[in-house]
Amino acid sequence: MSLAPSSAIVMAARVRGGEISAVQLATKAFDKAEQLGGERSGFTRLLRRRALARAAAVDKLVEAGLDPGPLAGVPFGVADLFDVAGEITTAGSRTRRNAAFASRDSKAIALLEAAGAVLVGTQNMDEFGYGFVTMNAEYGTTRNPHDPSRVAGGAAGGSAVAVATGVVPLSLAFDTNGSLRVPAGLTGVIGLKPTYGDLPREGMYPFVESLDVVGVLGRDLDDVALVRTILREGAPERQEPLRGEISFGRLMSWFDDNISEEMRGPLDAFWSRLGRISFELPHSEIARAAASVIIAAEGASLHRPALEADPMQFEPPVRDRMLAGLLLPSDDYLAAQRFRSWIQARLRRQFELADVLFTPAAPGFAPTIADPVMTFEGKTIPARSHLGIYTQPISLMGLPALVLPLAGDFAMPLGIQLISAAGHEPLLFRAARQLIDKGLCAVPLPPE
Amino acid sequence: MSLAPSSAIVMAARVRGGEISAVQLATKAFDKAEQLGGERSGFTRLLRRRALARAAAVDKLVEAGLDPGPLAGVPFGVADLFDVAGEITTAGSRTRRNAAFASRDSKAIALLEAAGAVLVGTQNMDEFGYGFVTMNAEYGTTRNPHDPSRVAGGAAGGSAVAVATGVVPLSLAFDTNGSLRVPAGLTGVIGLKPTYGDLPREGMYPFVESLDVVGVLGRDLDDVALVRTILREGAPERQEPLRGEISFGRLMSWFDDNISEEMRGPLDAFWSRLGRISFELPHSEIARAAASVIIAAEGASLHRPALEADPMQFEPPVRDRMLAGLLLPSDDYLAAQRFRSWIQARLRRQFELADVLFTPAAPGFAPTIADPVMTFEGKTIPARSHLGIYTQPISLMGLPALVLPLAGDFAMPLGIQLISAAGHEPLLFRAARQLIDKGLCAVPLPPE
Repeated sequence: MSLAPSSAIVMAARVRGGEISAVQLATKAFDKAEQLGGERSGFTRLLRRRALARAAAVDKLVEAGLDPGPLAGVPFGVADLFDVAGEITTAGSRTRRNAAFASRDSKAIALLEAAGAVLVGTQNMDEFGYGFVTMNAEYGTTRNPHDPSRVAGGAAGGSAVAVATGVVPLSLAFDTNGSLRVPAGLTGVIGLKPTYGDLPREGMYPFVESLDVVGVLGRDLDDVALVRTILREGAPERQEPLRGEISFGRLMSWFDDNISEEMRGPLDAFWSRLGRISFELPHSEIARAAASVIIAAEGASLHRPALEADPMQFEPPVRDRMLAGLLLPSDDYLAAQRFRSWIQARLRRQFELADVLFTPAAPGFAPTIADPVMTFEGKTIPARSHLGIYTQPISLMGLPALVLPLAGDFAMPLGIQLISAAGHEPLLFRAARQLIDKGLCAVPLPPE
Repeated sequence: MSLAPSSAIVMAARVRGGEISAVQLATKAFDKAEQLGGERSGFTRLLRRRALARAAAVDKLVEAGLDPGPLAGVPFGVADLFDVAGEITTAGSRTRRNAAFASRDSKAIALLEAAGAVLVGTQNMDEFGYGFVTMNAEYGTTRNPHDPSRVAGGAAGGSAVAVATGVVPLSLAFDTNGSLRVPAGLTGVIGLKPTYGDLPREGMYPFVESLDVVGVLGRDLDDVALVRTILREGAPERQEPLRGEISFGRLMSWFDDNISEEMRGPLDAFWSRLGRISFELPHSEIARAAASVIIAAEGASLHRPALEADPMQFEPPVRDRMLAGLLLPSDDYLAAQRFRSWIQARLRRQFELADVLFTPAAPGFAPTIADPVMTFEGKTIPARSHLGIYTQPISLMGLPALVLPLAGDFAMPLGIQLISAAGHEPLLFRAARQLIDKGLCAVPLPPE
């Protein structure tokens, strides 16, 4: 069994205390990534020169007795849709191979580096973020570290794997419809999908304006909370913090259907420990459908010039859905947006009975790469469309969610999605801390 | 020649001073409206019982030595898409004949009545606001008081005519794409179309969420400014007031094409008096097209259930455009919305050289009811689609505009549209005051 990688906060403390250098940490990250290779590390590009220069600058600050910040020397990666100065932002697409070099770092990268962190590379994703498996025809398939014959989930699979393997303690990722929550669940790491609009998107390659958010993947809860704080630049919390005991409610109906055998037992056990209270989030099936309509329409509209110029450059499943998206009547799109406004207004009352709602992050274990399907009650369903069934409605509703691995000796990681009212991220972190302290949730060690 | 009707502010002063009663003012308004009849007064419904009760309450306050507010006893009308408690909000459509009675007054009505004003009736409009002529198959054609064989313009034609005839000093109206600016120009009154989002829309029947605004029609500039202040409920101005001399610029290109013979001479003369400075508002033709796409898509989507249930209840030109709107691909709609965001961001730089831009409010005199067309350089164009060519781009850009009648002895009124940067309504009012004081603009007296 491998040793637990230390948290970003511990790493930074050691760098600030002169126990280890930022250059050493970056070098260790590169060594581990190289040893694993692209498919297993999650990385598509290692930014060696940039990272070592940046790490050396951090070390100089420490030597001079100055403080490089709360993430001093912490290596991190980013999904390859965050602009990195001087690099092409591929967004996972072959169509962008000849795109212009980014002229500056995206805002989220700049904020983390201003806090002392060191960007070490870019990570694999489904093309344009349109998928749940991170099987990319151009940049390869990212493998699940807990079983390399299985997918990592997606769209931000590379970012989750880079953390799950311990190459880096933190990744910046994105979430449109479950993009970071699904791979967090399938690879056993912590994933934060904040309230829509909470974290800065400047310099993030867009997919669906109405749904895209910046998110964070990590192994340690406090690390993830710290990154959120840094990315918010001291903005006041949107909601008054809730005090007192936290009540948990399990979501039923939509969120209790299609749960696989391997998930149902652990989920029921988890629920028993939290008092077996259940709730509904009505109209979740419509929310999922509305999200799909908005994604197809906005995603396709964004890429129309490239679709017209050279459609065969797109990956087949993305091309098909985008071409269908271009044919969607505006009325369907507008009806989806009206439903979104309606449900968001209604949701304000939904959290009066339970503070934190929970669902599985994904229906079960990660599917195999050879045959990425899921089977429920005799039906076989493509994993590509099915892995996000519990995350998609939450995106449309604009709610924040935190994915945590269930504690236990399972063949593969199983993730839980905690959901709160909009703007109540501090409550989610407090709830997650409770679950970890009670031994109900735990991040598994990186596999050998 | 008839006497000039007094301004709302003067009326209110007389009511507050006990010189005239609110009941007398309401009675006078009803008498005049009845004498003119529906087609010439602009009214579709007179709310006699409600108004007289309300007026009596105002008079009681005065008798008790209390102040009913700055619009004490001032009669006003509203386009028939503002909810009036206990009445059906027809929005000018036969399809709403059996709609539910409104349970409360729209916010704009409530605010004006809280300031002492007295609602006397509802006013004619094109069906759902989708038109520029106020020729309504269900509620009649509103006639231009300066020549009853001509249209009043629309969509809020009844609201303009009610003011132009002197029945009421003020109307609450709406503007989606020129709805109040076109009839203000064609009937010779003052019309304010505020910055998108500036005035409260609660209880206003929606047409196009992305473009609808509440606006004001009046005969007196200070009256219109006062109504705006009341409707804003003391909200701080969005922009710092601009001081110093106001520079005026005439918009060319799109806004200088298709101007009719009767408008060109007076417009040139007006321009000469203001220094003959000209400007461009680039991409106005795209702005107009984008507005048309957004209107067709959103308007149709809103009315889809009724279109499906009984399409023949819609007026033919509305039905045709709405059915076409339902077929619009979402990509066209999204491209129009992207263009809107882009042009609005660009516009911030456009007002660095001139504070106030101007255009005609409409291409020329009001067309005839018998043959509502306009002729330019030998081409004959339907007035229904052409009257708004100068107002439509401004709506998409979200800019505020104030329409004023040009001073002069013309056969029919000719209106000028003043435009400022977003949030600069106080500048528009200051500019309009200058133009009135210089004798360049003047509201014509109501015809005999």
